[in-house]
Amino acid sequence: MNKQIIRGIIAYPITPFNAQEQVDISLFKVLVERLVASGSHGIAPLGSTGVLPYLTDEEKEAVTEAAIQQVAGRVPVITGVSALTTERTMHHARFAEKAGSTAVMILPMSYWKLTDDEIFAHYEKVANAISIPIMAYNNPATGGVDMSPSLLKRLLQIPNVTMIKESTGDLQRMHYLRKELGEETAFFNGSNPLALAAFAAGATGWCTAAPNLIPELTLDLYHAVQNNNYELARAVFYKQVKLLQFIVSKGLPRAIQAGLELTGIPAGYLRSPLEPLEKADKDQLQMILTECAVATV
Amino acid sequence: MNKQIIRGIIAYPITPFNAQEQVDISLFKVLVERLVASGSHGIAPLGSTGVLPYLTDEEKEAVTEAAIQQVAGRVPVITGVSALTTERTMHHARFAEKAGSTAVMILPMSYWKLTDDEIFAHYEKVANAISIPIMAYNNPATGGVDMSPSLLKRLLQIPNVTMIKESTGDLQRMHYLRKELGEETAFFNGSNPLALAAFAAGATGWCTAAPNLIPELTLDLYHAVQNNNYELARAVFYKQVKLLQFIVSKGLPRAIQAGLELTGIPAGYLRSPLEPLEKADKDQLQMILTECAVATV
Amino acid sequence: MNKQIIRGIIAYPITPFNAQEQVDISLFKVLVERLVASGSHGIAPLGSTGVLPYLTDEEKEAVTEAAIQQVAGRVPVITGVSALTTERTMHHARFAEKAGSTAVMILPMSYWKLTDDEIFAHYEKVANAISIPIMAYNNPATGGVDMSPSLLKRLLQIPNVTMIKESTGDLQRMHYLRKELGEETAFFNGSNPLALAAFAAGATGWCTAAPNLIPELTLDLYHAVQNNNYELARAVFYKQVKLLQFIVSKGLPRAIQAGLELTGIPAGYLRSPLEPLEKADKDQLQMILTECAVATV
Amino acid sequence: MNKQIIRGIIAYPITPFNAQEQVDISLFKVLVERLVASGSHGIAPLGSTGVLPYLTDEEKEAVTEAAIQQVAGRVPVITGVSALTTERTMHHARFAEKAGSTAVMILPMSYWKLTDDEIFAHYEKVANAISIPIMAYNNPATGGVDMSPSLLKRLLQIPNVTMIKESTGDLQRMHYLRKELGEETAFFNGSNPLALAAFAAGATGWCTAAPNLIPELTLDLYHAVQNNNYELARAVFYKQVKLLQFIVSKGLPRAIQAGLELTGIPAGYLRSPLEPLEKADKDQLQMILTECAVATV
Repeated sequence: MNKQIIRGIIAYPITPFNAQEQVDISLFKVLVERLVASGSHGIAPLGSTGVLPYLTDEEKEAVTEAAIQQVAGRVPVITGVSALTTERTMHHARFAEKAGSTAVMILPMSYWKLTDDEIFAHYEKVANAISIPIMAYNNPATGGVDMSPSLLKRLLQIPNVTMIKESTGDLQRMHYLRKELGEETAFFNGSNPLALAAFAAGATGWCTAAPNLIPELTLDLYHAVQNNNYELARAVFYKQVKLLQFIVSKGLPRAIQAGLELTGIPAGYLRSPLEPLEKADKDQLQMILTECAVATV
Repeated sequence: MNKQIIRGIIAYPITPFNAQEQVDISLFKVLVERLVASGSHGIAPLGSTGVLPYLTDEEKEAVTEAAIQQVAGRVPVITGVSALTTERTMHHARFAEKAGSTAVMILPMSYWKLTDDEIFAHYEKVANAISIPIMAYNNPATGGVDMSPSLLKRLLQIPNVTMIKESTGDLQRMHYLRKELGEETAFFNGSNPLALAAFAAGATGWCTAAPNLIPELTLDLYHAVQNNNYELARAVFYKQVKLLQFIVSKGLPRAIQAGLELTGIPAGYLRSPLEPLEKADKDQLQMILTECAVATV
Repeated sequence: MNKQIIRGIIAYPITPFNAQEQVDISLFKVLVERLVASGSHGIAPLGSTGVLPYLTDEEKEAVTEAAIQQVAGRVPVITGVSALTTERTMHHARFAEKAGSTAVMILPMSYWKLTDDEIFAHYEKVANAISIPIMAYNNPATGGVDMSPSLLKRLLQIPNVTMIKESTGDLQRMHYLRKELGEETAFFNGSNPLALAAFAAGATGWCTAAPNLIPELTLDLYHAVQNNNYELARAVFYKQVKLLQFIVSKGLPRAIQAGLELTGIPAGYLRSPLEPLEKADKDQLQMILTECAVATV
Repeated sequence: MNKQIIRGIIAYPITPFNAQEQVDISLFKVLVERLVASGSHGIAPLGSTGVLPYLTDEEKEAVTEAAIQQVAGRVPVITGVSALTTERTMHHARFAEKAGSTAVMILPMSYWKLTDDEIFAHYEKVANAISIPIMAYNNPATGGVDMSPSLLKRLLQIPNVTMIKESTGDLQRMHYLRKELGEETAFFNGSNPLALAAFAAGATGWCTAAPNLIPELTLDLYHAVQNNNYELARAVFYKQVKLLQFIVSKGLPRAIQAGLELTGIPAGYLRSPLEPLEKADKDQLQMILTECAVATV
């Protein structure tokens, strides 16, 4: 079992496709390498950014193996294994463990809204099937299920559920978690435009796709916070806030793919029904990226 | 191509599982037969009630074939073929047509929110792949995408998108559709507690799981409306409104499965993470069903 | 005490102002006369349409007296007496009774959200101060307090709270009220675009500002419903639905004032901060009114 | 004109009533004195906490004069002058200026939702009537109007609208304001549980009723932020967060009145329909206050 500590900037790669909308594993590895090389503290394949739900089981396994192989132990790998049914989630969790993941991330995906007891049982069954840590991930905007802070607290009763990722953008939930759980429990912020506030509230780390485009700025923010220098943290945050808002509002896979292309980095294609950003959005993104680049200098 | 007219009470069977959570095709056929025998005007396998998204591709195909075989042309079969990716949706739509479906029903499922243009392109690609009619289905509560009435109107530009199913429960959208599209366009109500109001607003039909439990009451409502007798329609509606609200609030697969068992009809098991209704809910459902039975006499 | 029965079309006059933004009582009487003469079944001065909260105590009293004097017993007068404090509400309720109102209408206005117990005590104190009936009025969009159906049911325990006006536009609340309270309890629909559905659900009447602009169409709808002819009711409803949606979306005082002017009826001025509809909105209103006029012929 | 700088902790006194629900001016002065003596950087009478909308014009004037007289120039006085009509707002703004207020605070109160142009005209007319600064105050939860960040930015075009108070609790609006307006423009946080995050985002001050109960903790938070010591700021914030959440969730006038009584400070009565906190709530508040007291030592 991989005992690496998970904290800081956890970077989410996209899953690139070729022109025939097939997963491009070689390009994926290149994109993962960029994230590791630029200093990210962890890599999280098959997240929302990585369009996990749009992939077949075989594709998910290939991406998992490619990520672990490319990272090669340099930083922790937290693999997304969410699925609609409990059985498929267990299957992917076992695969991720066997392949060498440091931890798995699980979102309770929904078609029918789930009760708290159904969600707890779902996590418990998956947890019993593996021995690596689980990051419980709340993101109603994509997954369709909203886990209350008290349910998240309850999930921590399951031995290997050790981390929480909160992506609602509701800061009061982070206050609750920190106040109720104390400083020992790791909670991660998954809402990009809340990055500064979440660190102020005591977040252990920031789960983000932003390092694909602005790795230095995300790291600068984290280091300023670590140094208890909030004037600097605030200054660094305002340099990137427009980009953070943009990538969230346009959908992370579309926005990161477009941003990489604008930066001159091949990023492949999206899988339908997702389509590339429109021209006007790309132009706006170019302006925002230019501002960030100037700000970084 | 099957040219049967689709209108009236369109009944949604559940997909039953055995104790090992495998699809039970024999039991499924029994449940479909009940719906046809009791007078439903159409059968819609693989809807939300039929937990479409929780099934594998093979299971979806087996359920499709079983439904068509059992119905045997007595009433139209509208098969659900929604999937997250356009490619999978096209695949299932082609299968449904080949298997003999009268029409297919498509919900734009979402993980990442889709733009109107992405949704339009999605429907267009699927429509081009088949020659049977498509019912465009809006249900943000399950699918996560909310199609505006004007987008629904736009979808009708695609030749074989000929029917709309609205499940938001927002009556003003039905007013808009009827006012904008005229009486020729078929719009179906998918919000159970809105059944009376939707018929008053001019709905062509009611897509519902209620016939699994109260087939007579659903048909009585439709016939009263057809006879322009709203005093009777109102009386019949208030006999069933509590049941309609209950099955929606508890989730259709759970509520229908429990209701069938309470009525003495085997209904199999649910697939995890979905779990059976709790005892208190079952007791409440029993009371509501008893009231409906008394009301029907 | 006035024992007139309250049902059918309850018409809401605007409160017109002169160029100096002072209440124009003579013009108000003219507008009230039009509503009575055109066949409305009741007149409700000082409603939301009558900008009750924007008037001084003296102005409210003058409007109350003018309405009762002009109606002269031909139809019931339901006077709005809502105020932020309980003491002022009691004061205006007493005045309305003394002046000869058939009933009073009370909305629990809010700055600070009120608890259910505070709302109940508020109604109880006012009810004890008068002997005429009270219509409890729920309209969170203007008043800021949302009374649940169960709280409305509880208010009916107060002897002279005998009528409920629901303006949320949520049809399920009307289903609840009718199902819980039975046919004896009078519930009125205050959501214009829900007029047809509310009558289908069993509403006793429709509280509306629409008779200021389209008196015949509102009465035609009511009569069709009374005659159990829903095909006609639906046809009549679709003739007016765009107007009903328009007046709600633009704010009743602005929309009715503009509509009267467009119809050639003097309607005075609004009181700041309310301002007249913009040109584009007036043009749209003109088109909608023309369609209604054609439809009526 | 009073040119005192407004920043830091702006304290909001309640307006106390006697047993007959009449304003108790003597007690009000005592409560204002406590706020000044404990170190607050400004006093804001007639805010939401001071139940401005529940007072008569004469009572508002008496409270204004009493506050200014008691503060006696030691710190700035920002007087609430919001009213539903533009005319009454101008009236109270003029009175507040004449009485010696440093600035006025204006919330666009609503019964009918206001358009952006109506709101702008409302502020402009009031601004033209006075020469002291205006704090534009956004609080849809009480006032019923939600001013977008871009409307707030637009209001700053009016010369004496110089300050913004944001109480939605939406941190992204503060990011927008700071990013768009730069560091020169004063924006104040009015959402208590957002105190830490708002300072992290660059807020000029915190408009709060909390100093009535925990003056030291509010000041400690501000000073830690001023000293760029966010570890300390975070520690101080978590000592008070439960109290901040409690007073917001229960309604500031009720919660502050109860908290003062529990602390042994006479706080008078509330005006109906507002009623005192229930026993269970008071017990919870006592526990929270005890925790805060321990934390402060």
